[in-house]
Amino acid sequence: MARWIGFTHNGASGFGRLDGERIEVCEGDLFGEAKPTGQVLALADVSVGLPCRPSKMIALWNNFGALMDKQGLSRPEAPLFLIKPANTFRPSGAVVAVPEAAGRGLYEGELGIVIGKTARDLTEEEAVDAVFGYTCVNDVTSAAILKADASFTQWTRAKGLDGFGPFGPVIATGLDPEALTVRTLVNGRERQNFPISDMLIPVPRLVSQLSQGLTLEPGDVIACGTSVGSGPIPKGATVEVVIEGIGTLSNRFE
Amino acid sequence: MARWIGFTHNGASGFGRLDGERIEVCEGDLFGEAKPTGQVLALADVSVGLPCRPSKMIALWNNFGALMDKQGLSRPEAPLFLIKPANTFRPSGAVVAVPEAAGRGLYEGELGIVIGKTARDLTEEEAVDAVFGYTCVNDVTSAAILKADASFTQWTRAKGLDGFGPFGPVIATGLDPEALTVRTLVNGRERQNFPISDMLIPVPRLVSQLSQGLTLEPGDVIACGTSVGSGPIPKGATVEVVIEGIGTLSNRFE
Repeated sequence: MARWIGFTHNGASGFGRLDGERIEVCEGDLFGEAKPTGQVLALADVSVGLPCRPSKMIALWNNFGALMDKQGLSRPEAPLFLIKPANTFRPSGAVVAVPEAAGRGLYEGELGIVIGKTARDLTEEEAVDAVFGYTCVNDVTSAAILKADASFTQWTRAKGLDGFGPFGPVIATGLDPEALTVRTLVNGRERQNFPISDMLIPVPRLVSQLSQGLTLEPGDVIACGTSVGSGPIPKGATVEVVIEGIGTLSNRFE
Repeated sequence: MARWIGFTHNGASGFGRLDGERIEVCEGDLFGEAKPTGQVLALADVSVGLPCRPSKMIALWNNFGALMDKQGLSRPEAPLFLIKPANTFRPSGAVVAVPEAAGRGLYEGELGIVIGKTARDLTEEEAVDAVFGYTCVNDVTSAAILKADASFTQWTRAKGLDGFGPFGPVIATGLDPEALTVRTLVNGRERQNFPISDMLIPVPRLVSQLSQGLTLEPGDVIACGTSVGSGPIPKGATVEVVIEGIGTLSNRFE
């Protein structure tokens, strides 16, 4: 079990293992060979960065039983998803300026699976081995854009605006995803609280199915979809996505 | 007017200006300062690579008058799009192994706009200035996956499988997009032939609208959508997307 963090310190970016409030700085490749440099930094002395740089973030739709039931949807046979591009990524602590085009954003607390190796056409067993760890994701969405065109649901644009894909603060390894719970707090008030065990497609099958014909790369993130309780982000609100064992992804929205 | 190409030569990748069958090798940043090294290579001696590495490829739906009319669609007010991730990218000349999951792929010949600078919230005038040049795109699609789920049209997965976004062979600068014509040939037989002037949202407005709240990065590609004549790719067929002034994107599909 380790918690990997990205950071900026004295203008240089780096990564390391977070142990309480201390960062054991590493060099090399987080997904290959990461070697401690011997340097230790206080978390308070760095600016938290992204824990990895995904070549793609795959964001799931309709992947929780409670939300499926509430919305009267049926159980999907395969993962249904869109891509959130790199302009959406923000680290924990970043202030997100909601673009004017978006109207009000909706928060969606989610578990993020972080891939550790280049992988395709995986069995479920191989899929478990391809997972590096887990992170917290806020899959921010513009409801106004989503349904603005009757002929084409704008999943990509509604979820693809600048700052609409914060994730972090760390990637935690060695967790059992089935035991995790996602909580979302808006200005400190709990708005979502749902168990990952309610996922319609559990992690091994999800990664296996996504990898059919589609290569996953180290650092790619799979945002597993949200459950009930998503809602609008009030202007100036701080949204926290909390997963015990990983940490708290916290962003203020302006 | 220049034609920029990426290549691999003796195991090293590079880029340069293509002049007939000769490449004037450059160093530096294609979108910043590109300086000739003095080296000249014969096109026949290199392996053609991608002309750039997009952080995202934005692929348009319903953006040509003829196809809109044929399909009985209405004119969109804003660009409707999805993201094609990096695992789809292939250079001209690459053989695409159509993943088993896809069934048969469909070819869609398209014009690709290549962005030259980091840009957001552009006016139409600024948008013209943000365009670096143009390339050819084959926006390959799996019809079987697209409509496999009644509740969610799988645009992203149907167009996001490995090798489903070949583009190239070059980025051509100094072109007037309104004067261009896209032709698609399957095993040498012309299957598509449509003018860019039929685009529902012309280039300046397209780039301006896409940039609202969504940062475009140097090297990002906007695949402008296809028109009539798209169809299935026979096994083993070679598909060429030909745009005069840019060149021929040629890929065999297995």
